[in-house]
Amino acid sequence: MTIADLPTPAALLDAERLNRNIAAMQARARALGVRLRPHVKTTKCWPVVQRQLAAGATGITVSTLKEAEQFAAQGVSDILYAVGIVPGKLAAVRALREQGCRLTVILDSVEAAEALVAHGRAHGHRFDVMIEIDTDGQRAGLAPDAPALPAVARVLAEGGAQLLGVMTHCGASYGCRGEAELAAMAEQERARCVAAAQVLRAAGHACPEVSVGSTPTALFARSLHGVTELRAGVYAFHDLVMRGLGVCGTDDIALSVLTTVIGHQRDKGWVLVDAGWMAMSRDRGRDDCGYGVVCDEAGRPLPGLLVTGANQEHGIVSRADGSADAGLAERLPVGTRLRVLPNHACATASQFDRYAVCAGAAVTATWPRFNGW
Amino acid sequence: MTIADLPTPAALLDAERLNRNIAAMQARARALGVRLRPHVKTTKCWPVVQRQLAAGATGITVSTLKEAEQFAAQGVSDILYAVGIVPGKLAAVRALREQGCRLTVILDSVEAAEALVAHGRAHGHRFDVMIEIDTDGQRAGLAPDAPALPAVARVLAEGGAQLLGVMTHCGASYGCRGEAELAAMAEQERARCVAAAQVLRAAGHACPEVSVGSTPTALFARSLHGVTELRAGVYAFHDLVMRGLGVCGTDDIALSVLTTVIGHQRDKGWVLVDAGWMAMSRDRGRDDCGYGVVCDEAGRPLPGLLVTGANQEHGIVSRADGSADAGLAERLPVGTRLRVLPNHACATASQFDRYAVCAGAAVTATWPRFNGW
Repeated sequence: MTIADLPTPAALLDAERLNRNIAAMQARARALGVRLRPHVKTTKCWPVVQRQLAAGATGITVSTLKEAEQFAAQGVSDILYAVGIVPGKLAAVRALREQGCRLTVILDSVEAAEALVAHGRAHGHRFDVMIEIDTDGQRAGLAPDAPALPAVARVLAEGGAQLLGVMTHCGASYGCRGEAELAAMAEQERARCVAAAQVLRAAGHACPEVSVGSTPTALFARSLHGVTELRAGVYAFHDLVMRGLGVCGTDDIALSVLTTVIGHQRDKGWVLVDAGWMAMSRDRGRDDCGYGVVCDEAGRPLPGLLVTGANQEHGIVSRADGSADAGLAERLPVGTRLRVLPNHACATASQFDRYAVCAGAAVTATWPRFNGW
Repeated sequence: MTIADLPTPAALLDAERLNRNIAAMQARARALGVRLRPHVKTTKCWPVVQRQLAAGATGITVSTLKEAEQFAAQGVSDILYAVGIVPGKLAAVRALREQGCRLTVILDSVEAAEALVAHGRAHGHRFDVMIEIDTDGQRAGLAPDAPALPAVARVLAEGGAQLLGVMTHCGASYGCRGEAELAAMAEQERARCVAAAQVLRAAGHACPEVSVGSTPTALFARSLHGVTELRAGVYAFHDLVMRGLGVCGTDDIALSVLTTVIGHQRDKGWVLVDAGWMAMSRDRGRDDCGYGVVCDEAGRPLPGLLVTGANQEHGIVSRADGSADAGLAERLPVGTRLRVLPNHACATASQFDRYAVCAGAAVTATWPRFNGW
């Protein structure tokens, strides 16, 4: 079977690029002297996770209980659920733990800690917990100097939970421009999370684990001194946002969407394709690549062509500079097959329930992925 | 079972609003003297489609072959596939037709028409075809005065295809402001599509069907003289984009996302919830409602609160005016359950594989939906 046999739109996964990306991040973690715990929210695909574990990953990070349940069922026994835990989800967490999966949860408030220890006491269960640290002011977590930080640790320790340490995600790295900014953001992520660990140690908590990461900070950190574990996710596929950050090149992007030309508006220089926002997602990335960069069927970028507009099942391919290329209709007649590189692999991949794994023009496997909660 | 028992995030569907929306659009079509062919790309859910057919719809419109296959398997025998057909999909279309479903395709070029008649000849099959008309310059279709319009009809007629008529979708209606603009856009959609039919009739083609529509033009058209069929989709659920257009009120929005408070950043006035862009979609609508309008668990809007930011599984709820409401953390503690109204129901619904159907606080059913191609 070849790519030419696939109905469109389809999610293509370049196996060689995937393998290279996995190896590169694992080598990076090794060079930095930390363990790697890949975030599987990007791929949600067991064959990908298998490859990450085989390459040396020491566990996985998940964004939903469904991911935890699916991968625990495959035998993954060390999982970090990296979204603040709420009381209503503790029973499901406990069920997975009682089945033998060490599923660690995170929280960042006294109220969440109290709810967790109350549940633990009521059910005779000792949860593994990390405290979330805010290192960039963008989302959840406690600042290293927040009075609540030692207070949360005390509630956990006195309530019989196992406080493994601290974790952070510096999403601000996605807004950086240039290597110097990225390196500085990586150092900020590292330094603030290590500082939080030191606050807890000074208060008498062992705090053995210090977990940080995002793909950009992982690749631009000059040192991870004091850190024990790196988390990153999108690196497995990479995407145009990562390319825009200077984190990867076009040839590292392993995910693309195969699409077919369905028509033209010649006077406007438009080529209509069957990959709209349902296939590409509504993610506009850094707003410089439209809904994606257009390549030929073999994956070679067609200079200057983007998906500049999208309806649910229609994409409009045209020149990025807005000029009308009247010759496009002749060069890309109805039925022509193209590939589109995605802005944001996490969002685009989630529009599909499977990946067509390809090596050149050959489709070598179909790997299922799951979605939802 | 009640809403309080549902894990979050979850897609809630208010049954009473759904039924009301379905009845209102059917009554509208009746008043305009046209048949209604709902577009099922919004809901992709058989119980919803059943209700639309029971209310009087004379067939359905689909955006993918998968929708056609799924609903044909449920017994729907009159389906319009409203995305330009390409040669590679003709075999699948023919297979459905040979199983007894009258699946009509659309096209807008001589080359697509030639491919279709060649396939029909090769397999002894007579396809039903409509020609797509461009009435707003936004997507696919031929202008009513395009020389290619009679040329396409000739290729179809001479090639043995059944030319049912013309169809258009005036997506520009989504960019209108106010009733006068919407009514003018509806008239433009009607007049140009009817003009295209007249061109074909003058050239000797019967062209019995004239199919137009979008939810906004359907609701604001003052006359559909010359039109035989109306297509609309999002009206079944409605959403904040439709509300912004003046097409519906807040109390008409049948779809919402149930979510749980997972934490706070008190100094910023942020409430973090477990509905991020994976649950809400990346669709920013008209950019005035963030990622959605926040309601209490019962669905009553909380004045001034939006999902102002989103990561994959984190939403940031805060005041729309940007002010920090320090009291929010006390009013909405960890574990509080909220509902979020979506910008674009088509995009938000597609993030879920089922709807929890509710009547007040009671969950009365779970309806599956499908995604993908």
